Amino acid sequence: MRTGPKASGPRTASQIAHHVLARAEENARLDRYEQDVKSAFDAIVPTLKRISALQHETDFESRAQDIARRELGFELPEDILADAWVERLDMRRLHAWCTFATYRRFCDDFFSRDPLAAEEGDRHFNGGFEGFLQTCGFHTLDISPCADGRLAHLIRYVLRLPHRAVRRKSYAGALFDIDDSVQKWVETEMLRFRSGRPNTADAPTRYLKLVAYHFSSSDPEHEGCAAHGSDTTKAAAAGLERLLGFQQAIENSFCCGASIDLLLIGVDTDRDAIRVHVPDAEGGMAVDRYLDVMELYETTARLDASRARHDIQDAVRQTSPGVAEGMARLIERLIENNLSQIDSVRGRHGERYADIGHAEHFIGAGVGFEEIQLRNLMYFAYLDTVEEATQDLDVGIRIFTGLNVRRGLPAPVVVRFDYHGQVPGARDRAVARCRRVSEAIKSRYADLFERGLLHLMQVVRDCNADAPIEVLACTASADAKAGGHR
Amino acid sequence: MRTGPKASGPRTASQIAHHVLARAEENARLDRYEQDVKSAFDAIVPTLKRISALQHETDFESRAQDIARRELGFELPEDILADAWVERLDMRRLHAWCTFATYRRFCDDFFSRDPLAAEEGDRHFNGGFEGFLQTCGFHTLDISPCADGRLAHLIRYVLRLPHRAVRRKSYAGALFDIDDSVQKWVETEMLRFRSGRPNTADAPTRYLKLVAYHFSSSDPEHEGCAAHGSDTTKAAAAGLERLLGFQQAIENSFCCGASIDLLLIGVDTDRDAIRVHVPDAEGGMAVDRYLDVMELYETTARLDASRARHDIQDAVRQTSPGVAEGMARLIERLIENNLSQIDSVRGRHGERYADIGHAEHFIGAGVGFEEIQLRNLMYFAYLDTVEEATQDLDVGIRIFTGLNVRRGLPAPVVVRFDYHGQVPGARDRAVARCRRVSEAIKSRYADLFERGLLHLMQVVRDCNADAPIEVLACTASADAKAGGHR
Repeated sequence: MRTGPKASGPRTASQIAHHVLARAEENARLDRYEQDVKSAFDAIVPTLKRISALQHETDFESRAQDIARRELGFELPEDILADAWVERLDMRRLHAWCTFATYRRFCDDFFSRDPLAAEEGDRHFNGGFEGFLQTCGFHTLDISPCADGRLAHLIRYVLRLPHRAVRRKSYAGALFDIDDSVQKWVETEMLRFRSGRPNTADAPTRYLKLVAYHFSSSDPEHEGCAAHGSDTTKAAAAGLERLLGFQQAIENSFCCGASIDLLLIGVDTDRDAIRVHVPDAEGGMAVDRYLDVMELYETTARLDASRARHDIQDAVRQTSPGVAEGMARLIERLIENNLSQIDSVRGRHGERYADIGHAEHFIGAGVGFEEIQLRNLMYFAYLDTVEEATQDLDVGIRIFTGLNVRRGLPAPVVVRFDYHGQVPGARDRAVARCRRVSEAIKSRYADLFERGLLHLMQVVRDCNADAPIEVLACTASADAKAGGHR
Repeated sequence: MRTGPKASGPRTASQIAHHVLARAEENARLDRYEQDVKSAFDAIVPTLKRISALQHETDFESRAQDIARRELGFELPEDILADAWVERLDMRRLHAWCTFATYRRFCDDFFSRDPLAAEEGDRHFNGGFEGFLQTCGFHTLDISPCADGRLAHLIRYVLRLPHRAVRRKSYAGALFDIDDSVQKWVETEMLRFRSGRPNTADAPTRYLKLVAYHFSSSDPEHEGCAAHGSDTTKAAAAGLERLLGFQQAIENSFCCGASIDLLLIGVDTDRDAIRVHVPDAEGGMAVDRYLDVMELYETTARLDASRARHDIQDAVRQTSPGVAEGMARLIERLIENNLSQIDSVRGRHGERYADIGHAEHFIGAGVGFEEIQLRNLMYFAYLDTVEEATQDLDVGIRIFTGLNVRRGLPAPVVVRFDYHGQVPGARDRAVARCRRVSEAIKSRYADLFERGLLHLMQVVRDCNADAPIEVLACTASADAKAGGHR
């Protein structure tokens, strides 16, 4: 695939040479899935425009349903169409309804078909990855990216990891909650002692916490991390500080030499290229000592595969000569995986993504959303209560004011709480949380809600069963019960 | 001490014979502490009345300070007194200020002097109790009483347990949070495996969860548990159901025969007498199968000590013939302890407490309050956010509307978050939570707050250090910083 010399000046997608280590088939598969999902959401506005233009024709309802079936793959709620003759079609409700219906179909597909799972012969996947991780000296990989929608695909796309084999908890600015992580560490260690899962407690492995901050290489002062004022150094330093805080919390709270390992990476959201702050022999990292995988992509693209891998190994060790062997191997894997993603972005978008800014289709608020492994699809406000998350939610509403409200379209919000079905009363509590949070959102953004510019769908899911999502209520449905449609 | 025959008809305190197993010295000590604390709070209103009557005299400020020093033990803030000549003394602010100052002194005393600790020779206490608990087959005793202020003294008074050797988490209706308890179980088991605390994981002991519901023997339909509509059977059934849910959650979530033991007790808040739902051989309990310790008090009061203990043992086994030996021994201990409390209440109050209803002095909102081991001193709203706890807070404000606001006095609210000082950033997070919750309370009860009928003091405490409380802010202080007083 190494066709032609390195292009000088701006390149178009077709001119781009692929990297020797890029996995073309995997790229094609992941790309296809992303395009399928996004085009379904992208189809909503043009389809509704066409339908809107027909609303005063006599056979409006049947023609609208024909178009909806063909373009969107589902029928529209009859009551909304039937009411159009009285005043005019309630486009806001219809838009929210279509967004929610598309989201629901996307979820059903994800949980029934497992489209991002390993394929036959993908030796690095799932079980394979857990085993590999343990040979590197880690029994758990706990990743906290920034909650920014441009990092929502970090696990499965940017790092090409099996999404079920790692823990993901997103926070604004990647500033994860130390108490929550300590709790997860405690649970992890208990299960090793008690059940030998994922390995027994006497195995010499540790819990690895990874923080992913982000920046924009083409517009660093505006399209970087909002939580850190688009200051890349600040974002990296804050991530490193939080990691050290977590480590110190474990060391101070538990005896017998308890500790954890840490890794800091940065993501260029324009090109999905990572930089890795390779730890030294003592595990120490520095904000200004990192390996830039974009550079590595350029210098290794046209080598043969084994030479390219060799150069990656060298580069990791040159960055931090004392790096532990297992950590180095994990980092090499992450880098090689990332080369495929860089290659894929280049192949499809050229020098950088066209949408380097926000372009989400809906807001997700609550706990869950395992299916969101795609970039710029959903703005995620991870929350238990609106009271604690007002800042995150306000940012989300501000983004959707720019994206939707200024065009007269609503901000669609999915309120979602996943629960563990084997715990008695867990579903009831998830349902109650959905209701409470929905009420709090309605009351905080009462003005938008009353003008039909904010719609809410309430969803729960039993994350222990291999279950689909369960829709509880939806403000865009006539009977306040979405998903009654076929 | 067994003087005279059993009195017939209502008895006065002086007529009451003491129970053979009642510990007179311990009763005197606990009683003295309770009286000291309560009388300090009780002195506030009469003292302020006297001071109010003087406010237009020429030497008002110095006379007021003399009275305050003498009656309350501290001086009043000069700015409030100095402003009195302009309009009139701001009694609301002054009342809140005195309540907060008294609370602060009470806390400082508690954390510096440890007034409820074991005394020399108290063989059943602290280390002794943990060892005893393990011989009964339990490594942890986790108690969830109802959050009702009439059960705030459950651990140290009603059950006479060392308050630092058991876990207490209060919830409205004793309906504890299963997820929170599962998390505590996980942590407990991890520490046993990892550090052998409180015993090693191979010791054949289990985690014991105890629920304490409550009722009123003299006015069961009005002074019982508000969360269960004063329905004793409902309160007991709901407690039992929650216990079984917790057990099932552990059994379903963890393998290798993981389980816990359960115990349900009821408390008659008129007399502090408990009833124990003694578990059968399989650990099963029934709402209508319990041992009434009040009855046992009557029938054993005038026996000799060893005969009384023997009857207690018999009664436990008669209630549930198959009860496990260790569980039976723990229950016998709780019963004998409770006899002292019943005796103490009888001795001081006769047939029942005079204040069988609410008589709290302030509301506590947040997480912490280890020092609150006294009955009817504080209404406790255990909360992380106002959003999740609106119901509990509304009840508290309603109670204080009856107790204070209708007399023109404010509802004093202590917002408190304890933190683990060894966790980096923990204090900052506690401070931020205090501020967030205080703002949310001010906004929810804006009408009261603006009329000076709601005052807030913000407090944090490092619960890992043996530290005093730290006052962050107070709406009753001129500089919004309480505790600037000497």
